[in-house]
Amino acid sequence: MPDPKITYLKQTIKSIADFPQKGILFRDITSLCEDPKAFQMLVDLMAEPFNGMNITKVAATEARGFVFGAAVAFKLNCGVVLIRKPGKLPREVYSQDYSLEYGSNTLQIHKDAINADDNVLVVDDLIATGGTIDATVSLVKQCGGKVKGICFAISLPDLGGEGAVKEKYPDVRVVSVLDFPGH
Amino acid sequence: MPDPKITYLKQTIKSIADFPQKGILFRDITSLCEDPKAFQMLVDLMAEPFNGMNITKVAATEARGFVFGAAVAFKLNCGVVLIRKPGKLPREVYSQDYSLEYGSNTLQIHKDAINADDNVLVVDDLIATGGTIDATVSLVKQCGGKVKGICFAISLPDLGGEGAVKEKYPDVRVVSVLDFPGH
Repeated sequence: MPDPKITYLKQTIKSIADFPQKGILFRDITSLCEDPKAFQMLVDLMAEPFNGMNITKVAATEARGFVFGAAVAFKLNCGVVLIRKPGKLPREVYSQDYSLEYGSNTLQIHKDAINADDNVLVVDDLIATGGTIDATVSLVKQCGGKVKGICFAISLPDLGGEGAVKEKYPDVRVVSVLDFPGH
Repeated sequence: MPDPKITYLKQTIKSIADFPQKGILFRDITSLCEDPKAFQMLVDLMAEPFNGMNITKVAATEARGFVFGAAVAFKLNCGVVLIRKPGKLPREVYSQDYSLEYGSNTLQIHKDAINADDNVLVVDDLIATGGTIDATVSLVKQCGGKVKGICFAISLPDLGGEGAVKEKYPDVRVVSVLDFPGH
């Protein structure tokens, strides 16, 4: 029997055909965020598996990742580190190029955002092919931080990203709350 | 005597000269967010004045506004509505042009994100001249929502935005936690 919380959450997500380009079935998490009960429930389910792991910082990727990263960080009583597109962070940064489902991009982190004492949870809204997450993990490591967990609101498992992340980082706890098979 | 919480929070914010352009002293809130104690404290101070006002949704503006909007929404047990730049929201939107400190822009909201039953708290990281907030309030109203509160992490009062917002919306509770006189 499906978990009633998961069933509730999934029906708050709207699916839009051919966005942002033809052939993509876009899972729109904004409709979930607008539902007070769903937003609280999802953040709780994202944070819960990392309780007691002494997470000191959440790393969150611009822009939808900020929504879940900030709420999960608040729930876990830790700080939130903003991973941003080039030109947005005002101090010295590390940069990482990456490819993603619809093209390619670069992400940056402040060099002093994370240090060797930090246990880091990487949070993003969705994992498709996994390029964004690889770049984010790389940036956390460039700062000297330890990645202890990776958490997604949504996984599209058939695109292979979640499986690849689990294989690449066997010592990291990887959690996705809502799986949507297909694309 | 200055409030020790405010003193603590202010010293976690880094000031960067001439970013993003010459003559601007940029108040970098990312360094505050990275400090676990400061992030929790700031979100508490942003949310507290709106307890008991039956806020149903927080409206937050891309991208730094998402950080505070999501955490404040989680704290207040309500949903969060994402106000985004053009092309980012997949469903039907209302649009609003606005001018801001460093140029001009357009913001959008999903038409069904907010309805007439919603009591809305608008959250952003910083108020300078106030253009972003005017656009956000306008979008909430286009959806039929009632704006009950407006909250900023940082205000630059000498740029006049906070004063103008208070004058324009006398029935709305307007709060800024950290004031930085000067520019």
